[in-house]
Amino acid sequence: MSDVNRKAGPTFPVAAGRRSSYLPRPMSVLIVGSTALDSIKTPKAENPRLLGGSASHAAVAASFFSPVKLVGVVGQDFPRRYLQLYKRHRIDLEGLQILPGKTFHWSGEYEANMNNRRTLLTELGVFETFTPTLPESHRNAGFVLLANIAPSLQEHVLNQVRRPKFVAADTMDLWLNIALPDLLKLIKRLDAFVLNDSEAHQLTNEENVFAALKKLHKLGPKYVIVKKGSHGSVLSGPRGIFLCPAYPLDKVVDPTGAGDSFVGGLMGYLAAAKGPLESNLRRAMLYGSVVASFCCEGFGLQCTTKLKRAQIERRVRELEMAARF
Amino acid sequence: MSDVNRKAGPTFPVAAGRRSSYLPRPMSVLIVGSTALDSIKTPKAENPRLLGGSASHAAVAASFFSPVKLVGVVGQDFPRRYLQLYKRHRIDLEGLQILPGKTFHWSGEYEANMNNRRTLLTELGVFETFTPTLPESHRNAGFVLLANIAPSLQEHVLNQVRRPKFVAADTMDLWLNIALPDLLKLIKRLDAFVLNDSEAHQLTNEENVFAALKKLHKLGPKYVIVKKGSHGSVLSGPRGIFLCPAYPLDKVVDPTGAGDSFVGGLMGYLAAAKGPLESNLRRAMLYGSVVASFCCEGFGLQCTTKLKRAQIERRVRELEMAARF
Repeated sequence: MSDVNRKAGPTFPVAAGRRSSYLPRPMSVLIVGSTALDSIKTPKAENPRLLGGSASHAAVAASFFSPVKLVGVVGQDFPRRYLQLYKRHRIDLEGLQILPGKTFHWSGEYEANMNNRRTLLTELGVFETFTPTLPESHRNAGFVLLANIAPSLQEHVLNQVRRPKFVAADTMDLWLNIALPDLLKLIKRLDAFVLNDSEAHQLTNEENVFAALKKLHKLGPKYVIVKKGSHGSVLSGPRGIFLCPAYPLDKVVDPTGAGDSFVGGLMGYLAAAKGPLESNLRRAMLYGSVVASFCCEGFGLQCTTKLKRAQIERRVRELEMAARF
Repeated sequence: MSDVNRKAGPTFPVAAGRRSSYLPRPMSVLIVGSTALDSIKTPKAENPRLLGGSASHAAVAASFFSPVKLVGVVGQDFPRRYLQLYKRHRIDLEGLQILPGKTFHWSGEYEANMNNRRTLLTELGVFETFTPTLPESHRNAGFVLLANIAPSLQEHVLNQVRRPKFVAADTMDLWLNIALPDLLKLIKRLDAFVLNDSEAHQLTNEENVFAALKKLHKLGPKYVIVKKGSHGSVLSGPRGIFLCPAYPLDKVVDPTGAGDSFVGGLMGYLAAAKGPLESNLRRAMLYGSVVASFCCEGFGLQCTTKLKRAQIERRVRELEMAARF
């Protein structure tokens, strides 16, 4: 391990020393999504007003691999320490608007099995009127992650990016229920569509994941990724199916943001990896899976933000060992 | 592919030609469990009195890899064509008793998701008074599979085997409910204990599979295997965790017997494989997983009994490709 890995926070090849100027700079990932305060209750604990939101989780996860440009909105009540936390991860905040009003606030409660959760409260706050306008420096982004947020906002951001190399979007059941036409319009324009198994079922009316995948490709995307929580994830693309295992955890503290961390880690790894994208996608899922496992071990971003790259690499090796026959 | 793989039915190295006499004969697998008639209803079809039972599924699955000795009991109503079917798979029937009375009959119905099922009827018939006494030729068995049946019967069979090399047992929720002390006594004597995820939860009171595995080892067995249906299976042993994927099927006709086929294929492969058992166990699970996938594609044993070894090998390669990063 080089010294790079012993430093706190994420590191990039460009920071590794004098020879770095000869190395290609990793492409940055543009991430739009929700930036929120989460109040989370589990059978064992209760944590109010943690840093949360799909874009926060995805941005921190991606930051271990690539530079990140965050696009979102927060209110004037947004704690300064959370801005500092983004900055410690070298997340570019030029696209983060701070508007008069309150930050989006979500509150939810988990059952003992840590899979079923119910929403107790949703206060949209400044998100109610949010229309992201990308700074000029963001419009040439190569990798674009449209993390979970209203599909009309996801598309509005996508419209402002000039020639993206790879666009992925995540979603949630809410948008399937209240904004399906917008979502279907967006899906057509994606390279990769990411959703969980119950959403895949809801969207296709297929109980079987592999039958659902076939129908999902017909909506447009070359790649479809179905997240199955502790059961791993499935990638479907031109090279067939990839069955990605989840890192085996014997204790889950709080799964909030695990799916966002997965897709953030995946996009961050992909943007930094050399060679053809198609060949990197499987390993990118493995890295996403590992970052998501750390996310589950603490409330909100508590565990993920303490991570070092070397810890991620160690778990990737462990996961490779556990999946090898 | 050699000619061997083009023949109907299972084949062993010893049947491959003149040079076969120089090859070590694969060890046979002794399998005890239920031999039954299954009446199965799904949302799409209804099939009465199919050949079923844990031992039938496991024996046919194992027969693709190793010689099998079946221990069980059927009534005088047991169709002759089902005996012929066992024989086509070269299953040794010396330990199968045919007694006056009726064959064990199970009837069940599946919901649309093919995971939830309910038992409509259970007629024990000749199983009510069954006490298996092993023929002398069975007492030197190297590999013993105690397929799902009352744990007292599983132990009664195990008591009659002299020096088994490897003993595995499967179970079901019924025995956890009505014969837990018998089951706990048996588990102490096993090399490998196989159960599904909901049974693991019931037995350990742990929702998390990996937490449950730790507690299951404390009951005695060196290896514990948790079956998770379409989500694959997990092996825990001295070399750590192995995450075995399930073969991706986009249509499940009838999952009855899939778990029995999994453990049967696993034990059959293990008995035939060269080298240290520990090194073969992961691949054995892969083969078990593939045989189970064929089982799901037909009612009862309809699909499994038409299988050729070459088809199994093809799916094993496909599964390897789908799990490679």
